[in-house]
Amino acid sequence: MKATIVTIGDEILIGQIIDTNSGFIAKSLDKIGVEINEMISISDNKQHILDTFTALQNNVDLVIITGGLGPTKDDVTKHTFCEYFDDTLVVNEAVLAHVTQMIEGFYKRPITQLNKDQALVPSKCIILHNQMGTAPGMWMKKENTVFISLPGVPYEMKYLIENEVIPKVVQEYKRPYIIHKTILTYGEGESKVAERIEDWENNLPQFIKLAYLPSPGRVRLRLSARGTDKGILEKAIDENITSLTKIISDIIVGFDDGETIEVIVGRLLTQHKKTIATAESCTGGKIAEVISSVSGASNYFKGSIVSYATETKINVLGIDEATINKFSVVSAEVAKAMALNIKKIMKTDYAIATTGNAGPSKGDSNAEIGTVFIALATPNEVTIHEFNFGQPRDKVIDRAVNKSLEILQKEILKNLL
Amino acid sequence: MKATIVTIGDEILIGQIIDTNSGFIAKSLDKIGVEINEMISISDNKQHILDTFTALQNNVDLVIITGGLGPTKDDVTKHTFCEYFDDTLVVNEAVLAHVTQMIEGFYKRPITQLNKDQALVPSKCIILHNQMGTAPGMWMKKENTVFISLPGVPYEMKYLIENEVIPKVVQEYKRPYIIHKTILTYGEGESKVAERIEDWENNLPQFIKLAYLPSPGRVRLRLSARGTDKGILEKAIDENITSLTKIISDIIVGFDDGETIEVIVGRLLTQHKKTIATAESCTGGKIAEVISSVSGASNYFKGSIVSYATETKINVLGIDEATINKFSVVSAEVAKAMALNIKKIMKTDYAIATTGNAGPSKGDSNAEIGTVFIALATPNEVTIHEFNFGQPRDKVIDRAVNKSLEILQKEILKNLL
Repeated sequence: MKATIVTIGDEILIGQIIDTNSGFIAKSLDKIGVEINEMISISDNKQHILDTFTALQNNVDLVIITGGLGPTKDDVTKHTFCEYFDDTLVVNEAVLAHVTQMIEGFYKRPITQLNKDQALVPSKCIILHNQMGTAPGMWMKKENTVFISLPGVPYEMKYLIENEVIPKVVQEYKRPYIIHKTILTYGEGESKVAERIEDWENNLPQFIKLAYLPSPGRVRLRLSARGTDKGILEKAIDENITSLTKIISDIIVGFDDGETIEVIVGRLLTQHKKTIATAESCTGGKIAEVISSVSGASNYFKGSIVSYATETKINVLGIDEATINKFSVVSAEVAKAMALNIKKIMKTDYAIATTGNAGPSKGDSNAEIGTVFIALATPNEVTIHEFNFGQPRDKVIDRAVNKSLEILQKEILKNLL
Repeated sequence: MKATIVTIGDEILIGQIIDTNSGFIAKSLDKIGVEINEMISISDNKQHILDTFTALQNNVDLVIITGGLGPTKDDVTKHTFCEYFDDTLVVNEAVLAHVTQMIEGFYKRPITQLNKDQALVPSKCIILHNQMGTAPGMWMKKENTVFISLPGVPYEMKYLIENEVIPKVVQEYKRPYIIHKTILTYGEGESKVAERIEDWENNLPQFIKLAYLPSPGRVRLRLSARGTDKGILEKAIDENITSLTKIISDIIVGFDDGETIEVIVGRLLTQHKKTIATAESCTGGKIAEVISSVSGASNYFKGSIVSYATETKINVLGIDEATINKFSVVSAEVAKAMALNIKKIMKTDYAIATTGNAGPSKGDSNAEIGTVFIALATPNEVTIHEFNFGQPRDKVIDRAVNKSLEILQKEILKNLL
């Protein structure tokens, strides 16, 4: 069963916003065995939309469209739907009642004509109820293809996919099984990993596909199996992961089943009732933000001191000024003191600290641009790691954050598993 | 002049990674007057790539392809190029020298066969030198269409777009002018804004297009003008922005010419030699991270205390325990104390503080889920703002960060302009 995702909006085509909707929809459909054939972003132009619909008609089972459903004049999807399906717009009373309740009841504003127009929908469409906003989703079928239109606002689109689209697709279509398992490795480049596992890769069964997903400092290996017998797929994936683990156990840090490092670390800390804090210089609070993005983080994350200025390191984190003068603010000694001090200040079991020079200029230190020190304090010891992450600035920060989380995961796995 | 951006990689189609490359490429091409017709993401499958190339051939001037150029077996772009252009792979000596230098010189690793294979390129292609990595970019022409292939690693792709692709496109093609101006508004919804500016919108000249870009808490209005006479376009855009400003001056917070609030605020703080710090609870360090993401932030950003746990608010930020017990940790009084205390601790001119309940569970406070207090301390006063950002969690955090930056910008503009 195949689907194409179509995103409508000039703001995507001129690069003003990044399309994150397609990724979310793809992930959700993939989980229930729907194969995504293509993702396409097109302009708000009616003819362009019609041409795209025509090209997809009967080539895929599902076309999921986001964008172009808001209340203003630059929106064209609904009228294009009418033209493509030879239909007219009618007021849907259930949608009108919901829009009125949202605007007058929740937002306490007088309802406008533009708000009311959100309840105008093609007469033949099946309404997908949008609890999170005023623009409803629409489901329409033409010959062998179902076209589903959703609003482009991410929170509304997500609600509709999870609560309306997926249940209805599961009910109406028979689908194969797709299983993905991803192995997280770090410390070696893509070429090196590929050479080490070449024999293993050549012996993979036909129905298992391997992909390399390199990013700064790490390579993820994704195995995908597709077929009708779930048991056979799972067994084959498990066996091949076992044999792979024997070959590269030294660089495997975990298995990613949609779980991020921060979620895995969070679960371990919660289970063992341990706590953590961060002291950040060059990463500017991003490690804290990633840790606290996990729901339930208040069980183990006590907080952070972002000591961006040298004087903050001295006055707030309590780093000895003599240490800074002797070794410079970007040094192993300062990173170590930051980790130990934040652990003490926040009274935690673990603490991670970063100090570095992300560039483009050198700031309060003469350390080479790209230099980052990461220190991790555990209940028993403190370890310091030195890196040069090169340039540009955003790469240095990203790599420092990723590396910090990896060091944290490795250490926590070692301590708590 | 039209271009299509093609992204190759199963990891995008299954939703494992979000394609940010296309947005960057689109923005870069848009600036030099190249219109992006479509963005397409397709699988690593050779036939799918060939079909896509054939469909685009002679329909657009440029096809920019990213992905599928790394050293491992799941990469197919280079071989597909050879087939499509009826060409063969040859060793490029300049690329081989560069790869050898990167692997042996910079990474200090022995060079492998897979590394060396990066220097194999189609014999007819023009090489685009990749200073940031081992996979070169490639430029090949067939009839009226140029196909440009770039590696998918974002830092490498960005380097090649900026240093190789854009200069070469500028040199080889005549392009029209495209001007975009974006007006940032906040405080009113899309429908309401649309009603207020309806007459103005109806009087826009044909060659100016208006788009509404709503996001939680704010609406951006983008004007786009396209034509051959730059002077006429600029004059028309300026006149229409002036007349728009008269109608909705109460909700306009700024003009976005690719500049983010944090960049604008950063420049003002630098110019006036003022400093800032943050104290964050529910936003978990994200405001600090956004402020410090700006190059040169060390001139004005002193740091942050992320007081995620209540005890951190008391022990590190010095909030009076009696205040917390009386008003609860999510309250106007605690937000105010956080802003005043961090301003004092970090010795800054401005400070912003957040405390709230992002959900899904209630944590250390009985405040309704979605409640956020934002306090801003300036040299003269402290203001406290209360919001309910609804749910889910990530929306609450995003809206709290955006709103904090907006409050900061408004206040700093008022104080420093």
